[in-house]
Amino acid sequence: MDPSARFSNRSAGLRASEIRALFAVASRPGVVSLAGGMPAAEALPGQVLARILGEVAAQPGALQYATGQGDPVLRELICTVMAHEGVVADADDVVVTTGAQQALDLVTAVLADPGDVVLAESPSYVGALATFSAHGLQVRHVPDDGGGLSGPAIAELVGRARGAGRRVAFLYTVPNFANPSGVTLSASRRAEVLAMCDRIGLQVVEDNPYGLLRLEGEPLPSLRASDPGVVYLGSFSKILAPGLRVGWALAPPEVTGRLVLAAEAAMLCHSGTAQLAVARYLADEPWTDHVKALRELYWERRQTMVGALSTLMPRGTRWRVPEGGFFLWLSLPEGARAKEMLPRAIREGVAYVPGTGFFANGAGDDHLRLSYSYPEPAAITLGVRRLARVVREAADTDRTRRTPS
Amino acid sequence: MDPSARFSNRSAGLRASEIRALFAVASRPGVVSLAGGMPAAEALPGQVLARILGEVAAQPGALQYATGQGDPVLRELICTVMAHEGVVADADDVVVTTGAQQALDLVTAVLADPGDVVLAESPSYVGALATFSAHGLQVRHVPDDGGGLSGPAIAELVGRARGAGRRVAFLYTVPNFANPSGVTLSASRRAEVLAMCDRIGLQVVEDNPYGLLRLEGEPLPSLRASDPGVVYLGSFSKILAPGLRVGWALAPPEVTGRLVLAAEAAMLCHSGTAQLAVARYLADEPWTDHVKALRELYWERRQTMVGALSTLMPRGTRWRVPEGGFFLWLSLPEGARAKEMLPRAIREGVAYVPGTGFFANGAGDDHLRLSYSYPEPAAITLGVRRLARVVREAADTDRTRRTPS
Repeated sequence: MDPSARFSNRSAGLRASEIRALFAVASRPGVVSLAGGMPAAEALPGQVLARILGEVAAQPGALQYATGQGDPVLRELICTVMAHEGVVADADDVVVTTGAQQALDLVTAVLADPGDVVLAESPSYVGALATFSAHGLQVRHVPDDGGGLSGPAIAELVGRARGAGRRVAFLYTVPNFANPSGVTLSASRRAEVLAMCDRIGLQVVEDNPYGLLRLEGEPLPSLRASDPGVVYLGSFSKILAPGLRVGWALAPPEVTGRLVLAAEAAMLCHSGTAQLAVARYLADEPWTDHVKALRELYWERRQTMVGALSTLMPRGTRWRVPEGGFFLWLSLPEGARAKEMLPRAIREGVAYVPGTGFFANGAGDDHLRLSYSYPEPAAITLGVRRLARVVREAADTDRTRRTPS
Repeated sequence: MDPSARFSNRSAGLRASEIRALFAVASRPGVVSLAGGMPAAEALPGQVLARILGEVAAQPGALQYATGQGDPVLRELICTVMAHEGVVADADDVVVTTGAQQALDLVTAVLADPGDVVLAESPSYVGALATFSAHGLQVRHVPDDGGGLSGPAIAELVGRARGAGRRVAFLYTVPNFANPSGVTLSASRRAEVLAMCDRIGLQVVEDNPYGLLRLEGEPLPSLRASDPGVVYLGSFSKILAPGLRVGWALAPPEVTGRLVLAAEAAMLCHSGTAQLAVARYLADEPWTDHVKALRELYWERRQTMVGALSTLMPRGTRWRVPEGGFFLWLSLPEGARAKEMLPRAIREGVAYVPGTGFFANGAGDDHLRLSYSYPEPAAITLGVRRLARVVREAADTDRTRRTPS
């Protein structure tokens, strides 16, 4: 059999995530990983979930097949979680998924065909880019004028794509503490983006895994709070535990119907055990207190990282302090290249994600993503110190290279 | 925004499963459901899994993100499970998935493009048909000459499809105790099918959720045992618990690489908690004894159903006694139509799945699927009694209708 004919054409769009490829090196002993976006080990309520899992697994039905849409009690409770983001929602419009990643995968299947254009922030979440590539979509990054998405930039890209005969399937956005940029879309920009998308007939898909992890400032209502036409993706991975793989999509009823069918075709149903455990946790445990404690934990880590960067990084390195979430997007001084620097950084004992991972078009090599969520404060300082040395050398080397001798 | 432009073209291929739609009515009080394919409640080791889940969830890492391919220890143990089917495999070639359903979904994405042809048994598993439809594939049912798949029938369909300019992506088969037909492919047919597929360059995808649930007769080695080029799908849903959603794909290395990328794009990773729980169960519990007990349990239920059918069904009703698995495929007497009969059957207090759910081409209305896995023996007898009355009336009505008056 000819192996070249073995694979589907579309499987050529599958690409290895730079982050996942980094996992092996980043977890070598002695390497401080500022690469991964995992929650802190201290953030996972292991004892509580161990007890709850033990209790629910013994319940009738917990180990059986569940429904494709997800447990009705959990869906009700998910609505109470979203209420903290200003969202008024009906449990009938919620679909429980294997993390928000699967929610995005199913939404993409329902809304987009191969060859369609999808708009995303500049930079954008690497996992979303992998999904879009797997589905054969063309990603167009909306230029960031310093405030994230803007109505005119969206309109221009949509106009250009449609002018070229392409269908634009949706705008994908992480409006709160975006991964990797840390950018939060302002209230006025939220209104502007929604108004523009409404005017030009563009579906909005809002991914909000970090919304409740605001470390300072006033919460802004989610896009879905202002516009029930928005498809909203949520996750328990950041506020509870990624290992249960429970996320969800909230969508207008006509979209929800197709999402349920897509979920059934993709996996029949989500784990009943995991769903009952999350439902029990939300119903019986003081989960908002837990989230409050997470904010304190991540606030301290963010402060540590920002302090270390300010103290240690060479001139010409820039960053914006994120108001929440897990990530800080670092702009390198002239001449330093994120990908080129990485092997050196690993040898020095620090890992990060080069900015190129967050663009579909090869841009981003002058940036890198740092995460302060997983390492303890002392490790953050150590990692930034190592990184600063590597960045300084890279910039110096470049300067020497460019100085006429 | 024009809602008609809202959805992807391909999402038109999403279809509601007749089985899932039946769940609501079939679970009404007083209705004996011979419809669902759930394991018996008694088959689920709730106390053992409750203890194990409580233990593993407290372990470091259980609640974190896992790798896209799945836990290495679990993959090793999965190889020992497959060894019971004659399969010699390397853990590097195993990908852990959200049940075998997701394994099939990912395999389909990697091997098939929309418009491709896929071959399946006649009848074939409804969940697979839903996946193929969601991916825009054309299903061709291989005619069953009484022994299931045959080499010449496969060759003829492939020749016809290729002659019409279509790519044939793969043959999907459930060789042991197929859902819904109960058919087990004989040893000689296995060899014949593999030889033919090799000769004509057709990938084989073997789905084997019931293989270890043989109720009588000698086990036959799986197709993958004879041919390492076969892609093999396995599941813990039938031998342990569906609610954990742990299945897997075993594939040749070059396919495995793409499956891992597809899994990451679809869900990042499977639940670490569920994976560690299954691994602990396989390593520490006498799981083969549990499987032996399941065989006893399902043997008794199958005997009950076959006995009741023999005693109660009207002349002209036919079935083949399955050597294992959960299902019995009933051929109705002339004039009885499975779909037409169903509302009447529900009123009489028995549910089944009309045969049409298992064909992509509208065939099957002269058959229905009965499951003996979930109801207790007394309920099986009661359900068959009710069903026999409905079948007799349907056949009688038809006879009356056709008798010249």
